[in-house]
Amino acid sequence: MIIELVNTGTELLLGDVINTNAAWIGQRLAALGLQVARQTIVPDGAAIREAIAEAAARADVLLITGGLGPTNDDMTRESAAELLGLPLELNAEVVGHLEEFFRKRSRVLTETNKKQAMVLRGAEVMPNPFGTAPGMYIPAACGEGKGLHCAMFLLPGPPRELKPMVENQVEPRLRLLKPDLAGRTTLYLKVTGMGESDIVDRIEKSLEAMPGLDLGYCLGRGDVDVRLSGSSEIVEEAAALVRERIGDFVVSEDRRLVEEVVVDQLKKGAQLVATAESCTGGELASRLTNVSGASNVFGHGFITYANEAKSQHLGVDPALIAQHGAVSQEVAQAMADGALRVSGADYALSCTGIAGPTGGTVEKPVGTVFIGLASRGESTEVRKLFFPGTRDRFKMLTTQAALEMLRRRLAGLPLP
Amino acid sequence: MIIELVNTGTELLLGDVINTNAAWIGQRLAALGLQVARQTIVPDGAAIREAIAEAAARADVLLITGGLGPTNDDMTRESAAELLGLPLELNAEVVGHLEEFFRKRSRVLTETNKKQAMVLRGAEVMPNPFGTAPGMYIPAACGEGKGLHCAMFLLPGPPRELKPMVENQVEPRLRLLKPDLAGRTTLYLKVTGMGESDIVDRIEKSLEAMPGLDLGYCLGRGDVDVRLSGSSEIVEEAAALVRERIGDFVVSEDRRLVEEVVVDQLKKGAQLVATAESCTGGELASRLTNVSGASNVFGHGFITYANEAKSQHLGVDPALIAQHGAVSQEVAQAMADGALRVSGADYALSCTGIAGPTGGTVEKPVGTVFIGLASRGESTEVRKLFFPGTRDRFKMLTTQAALEMLRRRLAGLPLP
Repeated sequence: MIIELVNTGTELLLGDVINTNAAWIGQRLAALGLQVARQTIVPDGAAIREAIAEAAARADVLLITGGLGPTNDDMTRESAAELLGLPLELNAEVVGHLEEFFRKRSRVLTETNKKQAMVLRGAEVMPNPFGTAPGMYIPAACGEGKGLHCAMFLLPGPPRELKPMVENQVEPRLRLLKPDLAGRTTLYLKVTGMGESDIVDRIEKSLEAMPGLDLGYCLGRGDVDVRLSGSSEIVEEAAALVRERIGDFVVSEDRRLVEEVVVDQLKKGAQLVATAESCTGGELASRLTNVSGASNVFGHGFITYANEAKSQHLGVDPALIAQHGAVSQEVAQAMADGALRVSGADYALSCTGIAGPTGGTVEKPVGTVFIGLASRGESTEVRKLFFPGTRDRFKMLTTQAALEMLRRRLAGLPLP
Repeated sequence: MIIELVNTGTELLLGDVINTNAAWIGQRLAALGLQVARQTIVPDGAAIREAIAEAAARADVLLITGGLGPTNDDMTRESAAELLGLPLELNAEVVGHLEEFFRKRSRVLTETNKKQAMVLRGAEVMPNPFGTAPGMYIPAACGEGKGLHCAMFLLPGPPRELKPMVENQVEPRLRLLKPDLAGRTTLYLKVTGMGESDIVDRIEKSLEAMPGLDLGYCLGRGDVDVRLSGSSEIVEEAAALVRERIGDFVVSEDRRLVEEVVVDQLKKGAQLVATAESCTGGELASRLTNVSGASNVFGHGFITYANEAKSQHLGVDPALIAQHGAVSQEVAQAMADGALRVSGADYALSCTGIAGPTGGTVEKPVGTVFIGLASRGESTEVRKLFFPGTRDRFKMLTTQAALEMLRRRLAGLPLP
């Protein structure tokens, strides 16, 4: 089954908007064991027709995003109708949806907007609860008069409208078009603390030997999703192998990020964590508080960017800083211990390092970081790590490593 | 001048990597007054040849990213050679670069890697200081034997290799190909605190009347870059109009983010800022500390997620919280005042609000936020704002508004 994707929109070609839809659709199809054979962006206007005609001649299934709006530039609907030689007809149900949508917003439905209720003869309407333009599914048979045999999905461009429509309307239809997808399942094992090439070395040879398994790697920020697709038996067998080989590094099997896992772990134990950050400047706490419900497990965070702040708020001895430097095992430990004591939390994480681009020395180059983990009744652990590169990468990898230290502690796993 | 872009790479179609290169190239070309007419992604392998042939038949200039690696899947070089009927020749200079690159990394240059030193006859080598694969510029004349007249740029896929090559090697050549670009300039005015449609309402009519001006809007996180391209006279005239109409909302004219502007403002005045965050959970401090040199202006940050943390670290009276609630004008003011006092900084920003998805009430629905700004010798200001939507959007817009409050204060501008 050859699938092509056409994204329409001048804003995508100008770089005003990044085409995240293409990657997202690619991931959704990969989970079904399908792959987009070609993706094209064309500007609003007449170029849409040309791109649709070319793609429809090559593909079995064509997904088209955007160009369903009310203006003259929005030509997806008209282009498909012309290509397939089918009329557009006003759909009463869609008119009703539009009237309701506008009434709720105290606006009047204009004739221009009514254009969005025009539906190709023979197409199935895919409702759009989050916007005005409905989607359309045009079965392959509709193109027979023109010698085409390509099923088309016309989809809205805005991600919040597109995503639910793909999940709820497109994917079930793809499963019907290709019945051997029915028994197919996909599992993502999120791995952190290991580079992609290390993961490949540890698992790929054995997994490649499993017939019918589709294996992929999806790079995240500080983690890698190992994608296993195939029959549920083969996926389970492959997952068991991954767990056996690198299970300690698997954060979640449902794409949850390490901060989500940590918040859940703490919630289950009714425990609290505090943070004491120097080089990460609040990013560690920000990641924890990205998780809804973080307020149940996190109450106090300190950003002690200046040395005197470390002493004033966390009780770090100025002599310790003078002797070892602010970026040191000793100060990381004292920061974590201080945050634990001052906050009354059960766990405290600390980070002190050199984010760069300046401030590095020969012994402590840019990228050097110490991460501390204190907890009630256990001795404080400090890890020294090295994340050279950009400031953004440094903060991301340092906070990832800190959260992973806590995840391992809460799961009773040793550090790698 | 018709320009097309072909991005190669199966990882892009699977969604394992988001195609940020396409948007970035679109922005760079837009700054030159050029627009990509069509962008295509094809997988590694034979599909590259087909896509290049089709695009070369339509375009005057073709940019191709990826497929220059050493493996059999990397077929960009070979596809272009075959299409144009030109031989690939080992380039001694590139071999030298590769040998040097491998020697530095204590690796031996293999025959497989030497493939990367094969250069099309007639092509200009574009050096790649950040990787092994050099780029190639193939002038349009090279295709004459095959009836093609399309200049091609073969470029590496990894952004850190691609970007400097586009800036230093591709853009100067595009300027030579289209001499009327020579006098052309582009200015970005970064606007915050106004939605895109408000900006359009205030400036677009007048700017549209200026002949030769190319106007665009590039959406950022919490801001909009108004792009003005054309002759330097017309761009200056347009910029003057934008400054006159909405100058107070213009954060920078060089794409600097509001946090970068604020850190610069504070540095110039040798002043310090402190932060006291509840709902933003460290994101405000994290944005400030994303700026290199933030340590000169930021020393203390507090994340007082729990009510007792607000009292313990910032001295907020528990009775005040009990009376008005943690999300209130009074508590935002007390948090900012407390942070100013405890840190000894010149300015202090505070945020307290309801990030959601839970915790909202009828009087204070999810999205409600109070932002405080305290400073020495001036009365503390509090703004009440409303940012419903996702947690991520709430944190982003709240921190943007807080930084903008401080920017305005430091610039002597009133709040809007």
